[in-house]
Amino acid sequence: MKKAVIVLSGGLDSTTCMGIAQEEGYDLYPITFHYGQRHNREVIQAQKIAQYYNVKDHIIVNINFLNQIGGSALTDETLEVPTEGVSDEIPVTYVPARNMIFLALASAYAEVIGAEAIYIGVSAVDYSGYPDCRPEFIQSMNETINLATKAGTTGEKIAIKAPLISMTKKETIETGLRLNVPYELTTSCYNGEEEACGKCDSCLLRLKGFQEAGAKDPIAYKK
Amino acid sequence: MKKAVIVLSGGLDSTTCMGIAQEEGYDLYPITFHYGQRHNREVIQAQKIAQYYNVKDHIIVNINFLNQIGGSALTDETLEVPTEGVSDEIPVTYVPARNMIFLALASAYAEVIGAEAIYIGVSAVDYSGYPDCRPEFIQSMNETINLATKAGTTGEKIAIKAPLISMTKKETIETGLRLNVPYELTTSCYNGEEEACGKCDSCLLRLKGFQEAGAKDPIAYKK
Repeated sequence: MKKAVIVLSGGLDSTTCMGIAQEEGYDLYPITFHYGQRHNREVIQAQKIAQYYNVKDHIIVNINFLNQIGGSALTDETLEVPTEGVSDEIPVTYVPARNMIFLALASAYAEVIGAEAIYIGVSAVDYSGYPDCRPEFIQSMNETINLATKAGTTGEKIAIKAPLISMTKKETIETGLRLNVPYELTTSCYNGEEEACGKCDSCLLRLKGFQEAGAKDPIAYKK
Repeated sequence: MKKAVIVLSGGLDSTTCMGIAQEEGYDLYPITFHYGQRHNREVIQAQKIAQYYNVKDHIIVNINFLNQIGGSALTDETLEVPTEGVSDEIPVTYVPARNMIFLALASAYAEVIGAEAIYIGVSAVDYSGYPDCRPEFIQSMNETINLATKAGTTGEKIAIKAPLISMTKKETIETGLRLNVPYELTTSCYNGEEEACGKCDSCLLRLKGFQEAGAKDPIAYKK
């Protein structure tokens, strides 16, 4: 059976990718990064999601590096997570080169296990304006991966699949609901508490998506 | 003063890059990866080299990941380091996507400290045949970095500098000797012992380089 590595954060988008990759006939190999986020809720939820999909192997990678260098509100406790909504600028929750780092590590893993695809749940539609969520980044990264790896240079190329890249949050949620994606296990809030704050960029995008999809978000929010 | 991140392994090539970047007027910010090599001799030597250059900051990054996934004789103790010389095939000492991972991490660091260049000591001439040492990889990676980062998309682009890419080992050593690069502090042997083996690919390339440059290699070899 053909294999796919899934960059699984425990969030709504990456979990939807689990459902899509399964539907597309792949054996799922999720990879989750513990990169010095303020909280480890994402990792715990990713484990529950991997269990739900009954995967053979779920690799959890500790990279303290992003915490070591700082520079983001998601990894640096001296920076505040903003709550004033999505703006046009790159926000302080941007983690330097995060998706590039994740995809570089995922492609090494793909090469070792012989996977032909890497799924990543980025979207360039309802998103926070991070440069590494855009299609031109994904395409360039894919070319780079195939120049960097033994797999890519000997013919068995690795394909990055970003099935949500042109989807609105509404469309992502509709796709996931059709595929029985366990949204009750996903976590999106930047603050990582048991109940989501409902105010950060990530919560706002998620809530808007469920509303537009005419569905109820199954996770708990603070009153 | 303008800043450069130097991917510093403690080897001959990356240490030569320290000398070149200094000559080119950069403030040096070496970054060293402890990625689950069989030995930590490289890290210890890199620290001595950073000290020699009197750098303001030397960041050492622990990524156990490559060890966790295996797939290389340099990180997997069940694989033998070969001693039968340099061949045309990609050898088992190839570490999956290593330079891509290093450059992805280095670019995040460059972005946080505001460095405009990243030096990496790859060469496509006297090398072991790793795909991620070729100029087409470096160029593609550079484009990807500038698409992935805030720095790259807001105009202050990051440049990957690979000054050794077209140099033979002889030319690299001649350059380094001219710049007083402390080759006595560098380590190249895959086995990482106090005295170099003189037999692995890396030792063979180094010895040939010194011989062709008409200079004596200042490190100790096993009798």
